[in-house]
Amino acid sequence: MATFEVRDPRFRERAHRHFDGQAMMAHLGARLELVEPGRVEIAMPYDERLTQQHGHVHGGAMATIADSAAGFAAFTLMEADQQPLTVEYKLNILRPGRGELFVARGDVIRAGRTLTVVKAEVFARDGVDEQLCVTSIQTIIGLRGRPDAD
Amino acid sequence: MATFEVRDPRFRERAHRHFDGQAMMAHLGARLELVEPGRVEIAMPYDERLTQQHGHVHGGAMATIADSAAGFAAFTLMEADQQPLTVEYKLNILRPGRGELFVARGDVIRAGRTLTVVKAEVFARDGVDEQLCVTSIQTIIGLRGRPDAD
Amino acid sequence: MATFEVRDPRFRERAHRHFDGQAMMAHLGARLELVEPGRVEIAMPYDERLTQQHGHVHGGAMATIADSAAGFAAFTLMEADQQPLTVEYKLNILRPGRGELFVARGDVIRAGRTLTVVKAEVFARDGVDEQLCVTSIQTIIGLRGRPDAD
Amino acid sequence: MATFEVRDPRFRERAHRHFDGQAMMAHLGARLELVEPGRVEIAMPYDERLTQQHGHVHGGAMATIADSAAGFAAFTLMEADQQPLTVEYKLNILRPGRGELFVARGDVIRAGRTLTVVKAEVFARDGVDEQLCVTSIQTIIGLRGRPDAD
Repeated sequence: MATFEVRDPRFRERAHRHFDGQAMMAHLGARLELVEPGRVEIAMPYDERLTQQHGHVHGGAMATIADSAAGFAAFTLMEADQQPLTVEYKLNILRPGRGELFVARGDVIRAGRTLTVVKAEVFARDGVDEQLCVTSIQTIIGLRGRPDAD
Repeated sequence: MATFEVRDPRFRERAHRHFDGQAMMAHLGARLELVEPGRVEIAMPYDERLTQQHGHVHGGAMATIADSAAGFAAFTLMEADQQPLTVEYKLNILRPGRGELFVARGDVIRAGRTLTVVKAEVFARDGVDEQLCVTSIQTIIGLRGRPDAD
Repeated sequence: MATFEVRDPRFRERAHRHFDGQAMMAHLGARLELVEPGRVEIAMPYDERLTQQHGHVHGGAMATIADSAAGFAAFTLMEADQQPLTVEYKLNILRPGRGELFVARGDVIRAGRTLTVVKAEVFARDGVDEQLCVTSIQTIIGLRGRPDAD
Repeated sequence: MATFEVRDPRFRERAHRHFDGQAMMAHLGARLELVEPGRVEIAMPYDERLTQQHGHVHGGAMATIADSAAGFAAFTLMEADQQPLTVEYKLNILRPGRGELFVARGDVIRAGRTLTVVKAEVFARDGVDEQLCVTSIQTIIGLRGRPDAD
């Protein structure tokens, strides 16, 4: 994990406020667990309502927390008047979503002035076992001129 | 839209049964609206619980129905003992998820013996207006030796 | 194919000049064949030096002309002081590169102020036969403040 | 870097023979420098014929060695009758191709029975300086029933 320059010292507070504003995260039962410069983790417990036809967690639920983890990881390195918007991502599903807890980790690979590239992974935890289920590369744009309304 | 060879004439019935088995689809309020050989549409009405911090539908909700539309489009061309599994996809978010109804359309580009490549798009409808929000390419594998248990 | 707004009427001349400045295109034997607003075609004849171990054209050669076709398609819609830079792309190889002539076509899907999203495809022609070998989605950034030096 | 099971002890010899059979690699001046289980490196010196209009190495040349490094990394873990075929990849260009030597490294993330997922990166070396220019995720299929003809 590289060392990154923080441009807004209030990044943690802002990340938590934005996360709490995403109703979709609550709908999935997802929590923002770690917010460091260039790294974010989001945890989502297994829930029957999130499953596909074989009883595993739906790829879309894993993709959603991967997408959010990447966006918030980019957010930690942005300026106070920037907001992250996902431009695109690519995602490989390596294993079905089998486990008790799903942890999405976003790690910034390169933080540019406009675009940030982030690796996002989703791990399934089952007791002490942990398996990599999803690996992803995401491109995030930092939109300017939209400071938080406070 | 190309013409495709159907290998299992009961594909519609099987698609609907699989869709109904995905709790995640119900959790998002998504419905399977169209099932044709090589093409599937899934509709999801706007719901406050699916939003991000600006009140638009979360990219992850759009990604989830795009993923499902692609998987079911591939499914329509598979043999009776095959089941679709998403290997990977890439997705560009062209516009925020603003609208009353979101329609994901999966169109098979190439159906191979093992792998199927599908284009998936998500359109946001607002009255008579329709905007392309998401465009995606997906790779689906048809797992063999797992006939439906019936 | 959508209708796009042209911001610099000299886009054809500029595209040809940039293309001629790419030594790599000459090294592959590639020619810029069509330049329309939002659409570009690049043709590359079969050449033994471009092959992989089975005698077909290497995926990397097809990827390179797909990348260029996408970049130049984005370029046709940019302002006079913008230059295209490939941010990222995703590419599916649908068939091996078998044929006499390879044509890469770039079609703009969405032209934003900063980012342009382009679909790029590569077709292999063999007599009257034409097969889709590569399908791709690309994200291009239009860098500003770098007018051509003339 | 994980530890992987080698299924064909002659993987190095086979990788070199396949590499030497790719005319495109010679056309780019690329060499196979490292072949370990699950990891391969390919080096390509700067060459004026590989450049784009700003004199840097063309993204397509970097993409081609990334694609090959991924394919050969997958190949090292395949059985004697399997051959790698690139299904798809996604690639982010993080920096222009500025340097004296370009090294593509392929690292297997997951080796399945049919599909292998590989991370591929391209680094530009300039004296002692090394910069990550390209990061990529690739999906490779191991085609069966095609033992090398020897």
